[in-house]
Amino acid sequence: SQKKYPIEFRYLAVFMAGFAVVIFMFLGSAQRFSTRPEPCTYDPARMCRPALANATFSMIAFLLGALTSVMSGYLGMRVATFANARTALEARRGVRRAFVVAFRSGAAMGFLLASSALFVLYVAINLFGVYYGDDWGGLYESITGYGLGGSSMALFGRVGGGIYTKAADVGADLVGKVERNIPEDDPRNPAVIADNVGDNVGDIAGMGSDLFGSYAESSCAALFVASISSFGTEHNFAAMMYPLLISAMGIVVCLATTVVATDVAEVKTVEEIGPALKRQILISTVLMTVGIAIVSFLVLPHSFTLFDFGRRKLVKNWYLFICVSAGLWAGLVIGYVTEYFTSNAYRPVQAVANSCRTGAATNVIFGLAVGYKSVIVPIFAIATAIYASFRLAAMYGIALAALGMLSTIATGLSIDAYGPISDNAGGIAEMSGMPHVVRERTDALDAAGNTTAAIGKGFAIGSAALVSLALFGAYVSRAGVAAVDVLSPRVFAGLLVGAMLPYWFSAMTMRSVGSAALAMVEEVRRQFDSIPGLMEGTAKPDYATCVKISTDASLKKMLAPGALVMLSPLVAGTLFGTETLAGLLAGALVSGVQVAISASNSGGAWDNAKKYIEAGASAEARALGPKGSDAHKAAVIGDTIGDPLKDTSGPSLNILIKLMAVEALVFAPFFAAHGGLIFKHL
Amino acid sequence: SQKKYPIEFRYLAVFMAGFAVVIFMFLGSAQRFSTRPEPCTYDPARMCRPALANATFSMIAFLLGALTSVMSGYLGMRVATFANARTALEARRGVRRAFVVAFRSGAAMGFLLASSALFVLYVAINLFGVYYGDDWGGLYESITGYGLGGSSMALFGRVGGGIYTKAADVGADLVGKVERNIPEDDPRNPAVIADNVGDNVGDIAGMGSDLFGSYAESSCAALFVASISSFGTEHNFAAMMYPLLISAMGIVVCLATTVVATDVAEVKTVEEIGPALKRQILISTVLMTVGIAIVSFLVLPHSFTLFDFGRRKLVKNWYLFICVSAGLWAGLVIGYVTEYFTSNAYRPVQAVANSCRTGAATNVIFGLAVGYKSVIVPIFAIATAIYASFRLAAMYGIALAALGMLSTIATGLSIDAYGPISDNAGGIAEMSGMPHVVRERTDALDAAGNTTAAIGKGFAIGSAALVSLALFGAYVSRAGVAAVDVLSPRVFAGLLVGAMLPYWFSAMTMRSVGSAALAMVEEVRRQFDSIPGLMEGTAKPDYATCVKISTDASLKKMLAPGALVMLSPLVAGTLFGTETLAGLLAGALVSGVQVAISASNSGGAWDNAKKYIEAGASAEARALGPKGSDAHKAAVIGDTIGDPLKDTSGPSLNILIKLMAVEALVFAPFFAAHGGLIFKHL
Repeated sequence: SQKKYPIEFRYLAVFMAGFAVVIFMFLGSAQRFSTRPEPCTYDPARMCRPALANATFSMIAFLLGALTSVMSGYLGMRVATFANARTALEARRGVRRAFVVAFRSGAAMGFLLASSALFVLYVAINLFGVYYGDDWGGLYESITGYGLGGSSMALFGRVGGGIYTKAADVGADLVGKVERNIPEDDPRNPAVIADNVGDNVGDIAGMGSDLFGSYAESSCAALFVASISSFGTEHNFAAMMYPLLISAMGIVVCLATTVVATDVAEVKTVEEIGPALKRQILISTVLMTVGIAIVSFLVLPHSFTLFDFGRRKLVKNWYLFICVSAGLWAGLVIGYVTEYFTSNAYRPVQAVANSCRTGAATNVIFGLAVGYKSVIVPIFAIATAIYASFRLAAMYGIALAALGMLSTIATGLSIDAYGPISDNAGGIAEMSGMPHVVRERTDALDAAGNTTAAIGKGFAIGSAALVSLALFGAYVSRAGVAAVDVLSPRVFAGLLVGAMLPYWFSAMTMRSVGSAALAMVEEVRRQFDSIPGLMEGTAKPDYATCVKISTDASLKKMLAPGALVMLSPLVAGTLFGTETLAGLLAGALVSGVQVAISASNSGGAWDNAKKYIEAGASAEARALGPKGSDAHKAAVIGDTIGDPLKDTSGPSLNILIKLMAVEALVFAPFFAAHGGLIFKHL
Repeated sequence: SQKKYPIEFRYLAVFMAGFAVVIFMFLGSAQRFSTRPEPCTYDPARMCRPALANATFSMIAFLLGALTSVMSGYLGMRVATFANARTALEARRGVRRAFVVAFRSGAAMGFLLASSALFVLYVAINLFGVYYGDDWGGLYESITGYGLGGSSMALFGRVGGGIYTKAADVGADLVGKVERNIPEDDPRNPAVIADNVGDNVGDIAGMGSDLFGSYAESSCAALFVASISSFGTEHNFAAMMYPLLISAMGIVVCLATTVVATDVAEVKTVEEIGPALKRQILISTVLMTVGIAIVSFLVLPHSFTLFDFGRRKLVKNWYLFICVSAGLWAGLVIGYVTEYFTSNAYRPVQAVANSCRTGAATNVIFGLAVGYKSVIVPIFAIATAIYASFRLAAMYGIALAALGMLSTIATGLSIDAYGPISDNAGGIAEMSGMPHVVRERTDALDAAGNTTAAIGKGFAIGSAALVSLALFGAYVSRAGVAAVDVLSPRVFAGLLVGAMLPYWFSAMTMRSVGSAALAMVEEVRRQFDSIPGLMEGTAKPDYATCVKISTDASLKKMLAPGALVMLSPLVAGTLFGTETLAGLLAGALVSGVQVAISASNSGGAWDNAKKYIEAGASAEARALGPKGSDAHKAAVIGDTIGDPLKDTSGPSLNILIKLMAVEALVFAPFFAAHGGLIFKHL
């Protein structure tokens, strides 16, 4: 499994270097690479650092963000691989010890990511400050490169990782479980190692890089807006650091929360795992609300002014407390609603399972409907948080709401990473021939992890929506767009095309998984047909070829969707100008969130409907089962359809909406100066 | 099959009466039911008719629109039922004669609908004019009720009809084809009559009422905007009637086009049917372009001014020629792209069929991806038409683009209605025991009809998008919203929630079909189990109970989605005000179009992938078949999933986006006066 990292890292390095040059060229050319100081954007009477300096520092910030994201992703995967084996070993001694190991490993990852993201950002701000001095506008404008770097790595983690893991998973299942009738994670299946690697690549590194990107971007968006507000103009450094202090408080709160799970209220039985993980989110949310209050009233002046699209807005310190809390609690609502629609303890998933009685078609119809329905409450929660924070503190409020939702990121990531760690512990138990009871224990750990993984995805999507809106606001300010009026033909055309992009992108990612899975199926079939003794367990399969298929697919097949994300804002801004680009971003945002939530929850519902039938815990479930019954076969089809929806195309949309917005923000000076070529020449 | 009409018509009557009262109360209360003249909205120096008069005439116009829609839907279904039997009879004498009968019957429906819609509107304008005299603003404001009436009937036709037809279809297939292994349309299947009735209810009446609504609404939107432009203020009646003259010219052009298919270039063999139908669209588009030019240069003054959100915009007559043509040609692009993605003559559907090799799951994944991909070009076509017409003639231009797309409605409806007519002719041939060759001929007619039905849906969605935008513009003007700025918290929250509504609505309609189909499945199973001799053909099934299940389901299950559509604008406008409502409409529009196109084309692709395997016309197709092979079974599952997507939830979204927009327009005076209660009291 170590083999694929070097290849992927080489691609990453090429991409980072290439994109760094692009950033430098575009931003440097905004003032024709002049080295002379120029009038400040928001205060033309004063002189600021030249565009060339911003180009250079944006490039450095970009590289820092990218490297931090890659490092924490890499370390996260290392932690996870060690944790997999350890959890399997501890499971021999009981559920409680296995849970603690799996959960602690997840927490290690969560804290690693949250703290390194915060630390590098803080160091960068202080180092850049040596050059920029009083020019905070320029300083925090170049710091936005950090967000771009973090989220462009998420393109590899989420999109590439998503294709990797699902090509392996779908391919392994279609031949192993369906055609050859051998259990999951059976070492005779040639794709089993690729599948296990995929869980780490897609679920650990992918989710981590996604949330890292959201975190870096919302911090940068908040800092940028603050720098052109009274905090920045009056050089109040403590108030300026408010977003970072919120995140720091979040780390402290999450530490306290983690101790509850591992030491205070220990999990003793299997039934306690699900509620214990859910309680983690609730505890961290309640404690964090207090934490936000403390930071807000200690650090912020009683009242101050914010930049609100050219106007000055008077804001009180408790406004900001409400903004951060709105995001935090919206996250809790999203988490709980996601659980309701994807856990087999509730009616929606049970109804989906029940529809398997009449076959795969009704299962798919009901599953799609559940996914669609699960969008309603989260959207109202996000819309309410947006309305409140937007109204109280304009775009700064939105960025703070995003940070509020992400402030408990360490807890969120620990319960999220807990899922794939337990999943792979089960794989190791199966492959190393441990006693059956060990596998049963890891399966129980994994079942709870399935639902929390869905919750984690809900958080990731919700925060992505808030982050993109904050970035969108920062872009609009920086590009000098006076109003994004839907009644302007340019904006409306952008809005309509933007709302289409998630579909274009999903078509690409789903086809990528589909065709990579077909290639995997053929390789697995070939090995079963051509390696004598493979089915009997006397010969070993060629795992490496399957790993290579997934690796190559993830790298090649992410090119087209990656290009769509990276080029759309550049093309729209350069050819059609800043207004059309604003419409495009808004359209992609409001449409992409819905597609992402519904895809992710439909997939979760199908997965757990299948598990509901397999577990047979109720009379209804037993009537549908057992494994191998017609209803179960229908449920397996639904689960396989859901795999790319919930682990590739759905979560990848987070990257689409965030990356387009941050790219627009970073290139805003260029678009403002040279954008809209088509209209200029028409 | 006649039995269901009285029940549905009784519901229709109750709904119409109730909604008429609501319209009267809301609009009358805008000025507290005063009978005194009041200052005109757009020229406060002059006095206009009281709000009470507008309330009364809006109500009358609403009833007229609703009655005309119901009448032409009813007559269309009568024509179709006669045509079904006749086509089956003619098919005994050859393909050519059967084609002419089926096509002429479709054309009869198309012309009936286009001409009655135009005629009643023209008469209403002239009768209302007797009271309104010079107050054209008031006259055309109340005429918008006609659009509301037409499109609220489409709620019953599209949503109710869609649930009716698919509950019957899915239910009949799941037991008949899958469990009992009897052919489609076999008279032993108890649900076969409900299925055939459903084709008429959903595909004939549903599509007809949808397009009638679009036509009525775009005419009303154009007339309303024109009435507050120089045409209206200078009382140039000929120019004022420009939208109606375009539609009248469309009827003439379609007549000429129809003659080509039935008399000039007659169809002789089966292979010629598809190209002949496609040629119909091309010929009507080319001829209509000339027709638009003639009307534009004869009727319009050389230059004039239009109302453009409070400003006056100078417009030349050739601008309007371009607006109408932009819509017309965008329709052609949509039609041809839809054909490419849903016909089994091209690569996309063949790839979907090919993915059935690895089972139903990959079939569904590839089919969803094809649907997503098919959105791209139509959205660019619509966005281009919108940009051009919006830029040249503001909202009047958008309404004209919609009318342009709909100007060839008679041809569109004839090739669309041709599909279900041939389908049911096949059913009658099967059930009446005609020779096998007759069924083969009607199947050939039907296969071509499948693709043209998809094209018809593409037109319906494209025109719905343009119409809703035009209505949206009219609403914004009438409600006095200065700018729909995405950067306002109220607008953005509306935009986000609006983009969610299509998902909420689809969740409801899909579940409706799912649970109605389950009820149908149980009834059909019950009859097979309890009626002795049914499978042997010695006893008759109880068709009436199945018809009743579909009828009851269509009426009961459309309540919730219907309420969502009707109440959302009322709640948003009353509680959150005109700006939030504007955001809501824009969000629902840009998101709904994508969901509708992708759902409709995914369904079409699955349907034709199944037909591709069944027909076995290529080596690839033969390798996947024959009927009953694993690949074919996987294809049947995809087809069943696509049924509610392409015939219920997808096309119903047209109604969602149009009806919300026209309702907002009709109630705009009320929202402008009393809307936004929550913010007023906060």
